[in-house]
Amino acid sequence: MPTYQDIIDAYERIKSFINKTPVMTSRTLNEKTGAKIFLKCENFQKVGAFKMRGAINAISQLSEEQKNKGVITHSSGNHAQAVALSAKLLDIHATIVMPETSPQVKIRATRDTYGANVVLCENSVKARHNTTENLINKYGYTLIHPYDNENVIAGAGTAAYELLQEIDDLNMVFAPVGGGGLLSGTSIATKGFNSDIQVFGVEPKNVDDAYRSLQNGKIQTNKTINSIADGLLTNLSQRTFSIIRKHVDQIITISEKEILNAMRFLWERIKLVVEPSGACSLGGVLSEKINIKNKRIGVIISGGNIDLSDFFKNYEKLI
Amino acid sequence: MPTYQDIIDAYERIKSFINKTPVMTSRTLNEKTGAKIFLKCENFQKVGAFKMRGAINAISQLSEEQKNKGVITHSSGNHAQAVALSAKLLDIHATIVMPETSPQVKIRATRDTYGANVVLCENSVKARHNTTENLINKYGYTLIHPYDNENVIAGAGTAAYELLQEIDDLNMVFAPVGGGGLLSGTSIATKGFNSDIQVFGVEPKNVDDAYRSLQNGKIQTNKTINSIADGLLTNLSQRTFSIIRKHVDQIITISEKEILNAMRFLWERIKLVVEPSGACSLGGVLSEKINIKNKRIGVIISGGNIDLSDFFKNYEKLI
Repeated sequence: MPTYQDIIDAYERIKSFINKTPVMTSRTLNEKTGAKIFLKCENFQKVGAFKMRGAINAISQLSEEQKNKGVITHSSGNHAQAVALSAKLLDIHATIVMPETSPQVKIRATRDTYGANVVLCENSVKARHNTTENLINKYGYTLIHPYDNENVIAGAGTAAYELLQEIDDLNMVFAPVGGGGLLSGTSIATKGFNSDIQVFGVEPKNVDDAYRSLQNGKIQTNKTINSIADGLLTNLSQRTFSIIRKHVDQIITISEKEILNAMRFLWERIKLVVEPSGACSLGGVLSEKINIKNKRIGVIISGGNIDLSDFFKNYEKLI
Repeated sequence: MPTYQDIIDAYERIKSFINKTPVMTSRTLNEKTGAKIFLKCENFQKVGAFKMRGAINAISQLSEEQKNKGVITHSSGNHAQAVALSAKLLDIHATIVMPETSPQVKIRATRDTYGANVVLCENSVKARHNTTENLINKYGYTLIHPYDNENVIAGAGTAAYELLQEIDDLNMVFAPVGGGGLLSGTSIATKGFNSDIQVFGVEPKNVDDAYRSLQNGKIQTNKTINSIADGLLTNLSQRTFSIIRKHVDQIITISEKEILNAMRFLWERIKLVVEPSGACSLGGVLSEKINIKNKRIGVIISGGNIDLSDFFKNYEKLI
């Protein structure tokens, strides 16, 4: 289990590679909630999501031999781009296994913008694992798991660490939970900084494995993965479950409508492009499941990568 | 014509009422342009646009008698909301004349959120003017013109003033131009700070009255107003024309496609919700009409108010 010191060390290691993301506030949001809300905007992070922190922290600590052989991950999301960019910055070979059904724009970004080797496979968990395993066996790549990795977790925790260095006297911190890497890192950073600060994980009701896992005392899985928060569909690992069990005060579940309302507020009122997963933490704050009156609340806005092709296609018709 | 000192005075007068908006940078944008770009994000200003600066500066300087009688303006855009909120903050009565065809959401925001008295009229320039004149004659309201007003111009200039205080050694500043209030204020602030800094106005090619006015040495009007940049459709006034003629180095015109591309870049890559008018200044920077290599460039992103109803209606179908 990573320690608070691991997060401090991670921050020193990665700070020259990442953006120190801004903390935004909104008079409207404070009036609406009766609280003081501090939005830690990881949508402004490199590759548009907090994932950059964990990827660069993990990859930069590989041995020379591992670095020479290169890294691999399977993802079509933010973690893929974070691994690709981290490898590029460190001059390491990266292979990303993606489902052949991935949007062309994501494949192109990973391949062309970040220079990774993209290997397409069938769109199934089994095909993804097999393809990845085969490449590891053949080339000796090191797998950079999106959350089941101590260094990825420590890196993810540096977002909350930065926030706590900047904003005094927080009472609560909210982060979304999918596989649990961000929430794990956030909880270690927060409780390490001041164990009185409460930490809340926010999860879509439709994929509430983390909520049920804490209730049952053992890892539960999702039967369906029907949520617009496409970054939060995965299950906890044993590692993230143990950390969350130890450090997180409560998991709050919210409806799809609550996710969308939070996202809409961030876009329309605060002028931030935030993806559905990234809006969940604010959705938890607004859910009225926790008494937040007069509290000072840190909210991790995890990312802002969302497909805007249709929106701009409609706009093009106007010109 | 307002002076540089007027802008400094305006800043001291209004700074407690406005947001000190952040200056954003982007590695991707710098690499793409070969320049250092500093985005002054007035989409994060109160009411979502720089208009707040001019409105509060003008209204707060009215005489007690004028304040007691109240203010009026005709607009369905950002200026209307800025006048309404400024009046609310100063506890003054505000009347906003809006075309009856205005979107309900704008009417509601102006009336309910900002507490202004909304008077609807026919959607024509004549009806708008007559309705406003009648109300002024009847109630003694003071008209707060959206740009043809020295105090509005001085207030608008405080955005560039803030930017110049924060970012050293700028070589160029870009601002959009419609009626010319923002560009006038920006040019006075910039040349007053350092007359070596070049100031560029950016205008949609489809409504290029400012460009033609400078070419011809007298005010030209637009024959059609067919642009997605709905905040830039108006013509210069004699006042803004004189200022722009004196202080602005060049007007750059850009196509609708260039406006849309700049807006898309801001949304997708920088994660900022920016309206078409607000993206024009960056569109000018990206237009390759000016050699910007190795320059340090301030870019006023003027606002972020855009109707997202359709976007979110489509999203709701997914949940």
